[in-house]
Amino acid sequence: MPQDLPLAGEEEGLLTAFGRYERALMADDLAELDALFAPGHATLRADGATALVGADHIAAYRAARGGAPQRWLRRVHVRWIGPGDAYVVAETDRVAGAGLQTQWWHRDEEGWRVRAAHVSGGPVAGPDPSAAADPATWRLRGEPLVAGAGSGPLHGLRVAVKDLVAVAGQRVGGGVPAWLAQAPLEEAHAPALQRLLDAGADVAGIAQTDEFAFSLMGVNEHSGTPVNARAPGRVPGGSSSGSAAAVAAGTADLGLGTDTAGSLRVPGSYCGLYAWRPTHGAVPSEGVMPLAEDFDSVGLLARDGATLRRAGHVLLGADPGTPVGRPEALLRSRTLSELASPETALAVEAALTALSVATGLPVVDVDVPADAPARWTAAFRTVQAAQAWSHHGPFLQAHPDAVSPSVAARFRAGEAVDAPAVAAAREVIASTRAWLDVVLAQGWLCLPSTSTPALLREAGPDGFEAARAGTLQLTTLASQCGVPALGLPWGRVGELPVGLCVLAPRGADADLLALLEALGPA
Amino acid sequence: MPQDLPLAGEEEGLLTAFGRYERALMADDLAELDALFAPGHATLRADGATALVGADHIAAYRAARGGAPQRWLRRVHVRWIGPGDAYVVAETDRVAGAGLQTQWWHRDEEGWRVRAAHVSGGPVAGPDPSAAADPATWRLRGEPLVAGAGSGPLHGLRVAVKDLVAVAGQRVGGGVPAWLAQAPLEEAHAPALQRLLDAGADVAGIAQTDEFAFSLMGVNEHSGTPVNARAPGRVPGGSSSGSAAAVAAGTADLGLGTDTAGSLRVPGSYCGLYAWRPTHGAVPSEGVMPLAEDFDSVGLLARDGATLRRAGHVLLGADPGTPVGRPEALLRSRTLSELASPETALAVEAALTALSVATGLPVVDVDVPADAPARWTAAFRTVQAAQAWSHHGPFLQAHPDAVSPSVAARFRAGEAVDAPAVAAAREVIASTRAWLDVVLAQGWLCLPSTSTPALLREAGPDGFEAARAGTLQLTTLASQCGVPALGLPWGRVGELPVGLCVLAPRGADADLLALLEALGPA
Repeated sequence: MPQDLPLAGEEEGLLTAFGRYERALMADDLAELDALFAPGHATLRADGATALVGADHIAAYRAARGGAPQRWLRRVHVRWIGPGDAYVVAETDRVAGAGLQTQWWHRDEEGWRVRAAHVSGGPVAGPDPSAAADPATWRLRGEPLVAGAGSGPLHGLRVAVKDLVAVAGQRVGGGVPAWLAQAPLEEAHAPALQRLLDAGADVAGIAQTDEFAFSLMGVNEHSGTPVNARAPGRVPGGSSSGSAAAVAAGTADLGLGTDTAGSLRVPGSYCGLYAWRPTHGAVPSEGVMPLAEDFDSVGLLARDGATLRRAGHVLLGADPGTPVGRPEALLRSRTLSELASPETALAVEAALTALSVATGLPVVDVDVPADAPARWTAAFRTVQAAQAWSHHGPFLQAHPDAVSPSVAARFRAGEAVDAPAVAAAREVIASTRAWLDVVLAQGWLCLPSTSTPALLREAGPDGFEAARAGTLQLTTLASQCGVPALGLPWGRVGELPVGLCVLAPRGADADLLALLEALGPA
Repeated sequence: MPQDLPLAGEEEGLLTAFGRYERALMADDLAELDALFAPGHATLRADGATALVGADHIAAYRAARGGAPQRWLRRVHVRWIGPGDAYVVAETDRVAGAGLQTQWWHRDEEGWRVRAAHVSGGPVAGPDPSAAADPATWRLRGEPLVAGAGSGPLHGLRVAVKDLVAVAGQRVGGGVPAWLAQAPLEEAHAPALQRLLDAGADVAGIAQTDEFAFSLMGVNEHSGTPVNARAPGRVPGGSSSGSAAAVAAGTADLGLGTDTAGSLRVPGSYCGLYAWRPTHGAVPSEGVMPLAEDFDSVGLLARDGATLRRAGHVLLGADPGTPVGRPEALLRSRTLSELASPETALAVEAALTALSVATGLPVVDVDVPADAPARWTAAFRTVQAAQAWSHHGPFLQAHPDAVSPSVAARFRAGEAVDAPAVAAAREVIASTRAWLDVVLAQGWLCLPSTSTPALLREAGPDGFEAARAGTLQLTTLASQCGVPALGLPWGRVGELPVGLCVLAPRGADADLLALLEALGPA
């Protein structure tokens, strides 16, 4: 852990200087860049092969190079060496590959300046090509399965449709073969899907889901566990598992899925994808198999922010709500961070710092009572289980072996929930919503998308159950409050992706998607 | 400049730990490498594209990679952040290109450990190809001009012979066309050259020299200034200018030249070459045009240390002197460092640190009185001028326009030196030799090869004269004491090479060349 906390105000001053440097670099503002490096013979600037020593040599190099490659911050790690000295690592995306910059910043009477820097870059390892042909990812594929309008803002994009969403002429399987066997042919596309098709997207196929969408791991004992191309040997997360795996492997560009308790945000986090859970009700849910109607939300996954933003605007339709504008701040809660593993929390912190620098929004700490997440998660699970049972209980009573034991147990828990328990849970949810509304008036709340990166496929039912329980404490806040959530796939634990999740006020979906504008390649 | 000096003993402790790390890296000693990184989630290790966060992830990466590429330290820059914290930059040569490592080291109760590291690498920019065909470099070329023995330890190596050295069947031009016009054909190779030929080397050609070798810049108004392939737009240094330029451009592998006041060490420093000035008299000087016989030494230039070592052993012949073994320490003098420009001194310090880590020899400071270099340089110049006049005075009196005005002025200064002045200078030289013998009994003395890197070709006579005067204070110590000197081309000022010069006791040439064994590719 960092050996010294910064003095009060140090971190803000450092990151302000760091942000000035980043903007000056992108603008090739030589005077500003030179001013942010310490003068003198001892200042160092190293790149791939060699080091330049001396501020004058560094300035001459900058003047001659004609600008640095365009880059976007993905993770900024700050390590405090002591008061007035910090080591800052910036990981970036560039048009060609990834980039990396480490700097020693020192504060003297002139302010924060760089005394030593090291820059490098390289290609990012591509996905496992075997993932493209994975049979556990797709239930049905075409070339395309359904052609879109042939033109429009989404022209050429291939959609992996979660097997909860109606595709005209096909059945909805819900990840349960016994259900599929008796499901009717759909007469029309679900309205959400129709919007994507009208905007030019094609349906590449119907992607697998966890059984009745009642899991977060992406494991399905009937169809198998889709390959996670961004984290080989690990689960993809679910329940929008096939959609996420297809987008991660590059066999689709957009995943159309649902998120009740995190079923877009979790596979987004595990597979390194941008994920958007819209405001509850902002996207039509007709034609989509429900799990818990108080919380179900139809949304998207994509490999890059620009695609997600474009498709998100299409999915919101003609009435995307009233813009609320940019927030005043990015909010961070120690209570929520500590629900994640320490290394996940550090990874998400690095992503949050990058987001703060890229947007110019300060990070402000907010208080969340230590016992609140457990309370709101329990309330959520009560209502979710009751509603899930109301939808699928009759089928499961008639087909007792249709789903695996762990999913069956979740449904049976819903059978046992009585009306007073639901009413009590709804009171907790109402107070949570009121509390979160106050919080989100101060800024947008940033938290880990999941409590860990993707688990090993061999983790087994106990491992999966523990990960689900930990992650639900993070994901169910947005679900029960109906607020929109955006998952940014910027964290890394070792080489594994993990998401930073941003919550905005209800209805602020367009503003949340607009956040993506400054953050990556268009 | 570093903001804080280390506490007493800090630098030694840091560099001991750094040396352990380097050896463990080369041996792929995972336990030692892991022990030298700080434990915990916050420790960082970044390479070309991405950062690993957490000591466990770093250890797992190391365990999986199967060893790091072989590398040799070239410059190690230490910047003190404060007591117990240092930023260390290591620049390395690797089989394929150059490498770079920056680390933040922190000392706690467990000792010095790395908290953050960044590794990168890349190709080194090659020489300017136009340098290969440079007409100012060669007076005469063949393919080869003289074939060697056809086998032997130097088989296949091409020698650029300075135009002071007799090549059988050719004339010695001495860089002066009027001299060349009346010079006789040589009947035999100079014995030093014969040794190289007998060992299998070929003569690629006769390389240009400064006029009668009486300059250090590599500028010749008759034949032009050879292109410096390692420092485009800059002089190559002299007087072994053509030999150095040919080796730097890759049109020869060995430069056979002479060093009276630095004529191998200076072009070695300016052109980024390994340079060896042997103990006075250790290599036969028969058949080589003299400049000042008290100081003249026949030696070598090469692009890599292994070639220099191999050829050096050949040049020393059957009786290479009595080995004295490795020194106890590397000696450093603040007085001598301060004779170089501040950035040259810093560059040479980084090279010395690399040499210390690579050899395991400590760096020990020695006292040199501040006025000593001026005194010994004046004495040297007096004797040099007198001897130079005795050799070339008669010719120059008969051919008053044969050399350029600045060189002519140097010779005329010798005409004015009388016998009592020479005797007084020889007393100073004798006391300098006695003093240096005591110093070199403690270790080998390390100093900048030149006071700056190569000057711009446009620097002009005044600029060249100032650079010569500054550099003579560094180079004439070895010359007047007759000790061997090895120039290591490891320093960099901006992108320009500059040499680190190591002086050893008289006769310790084989030991000095043996130093090269651990320092680079064989």
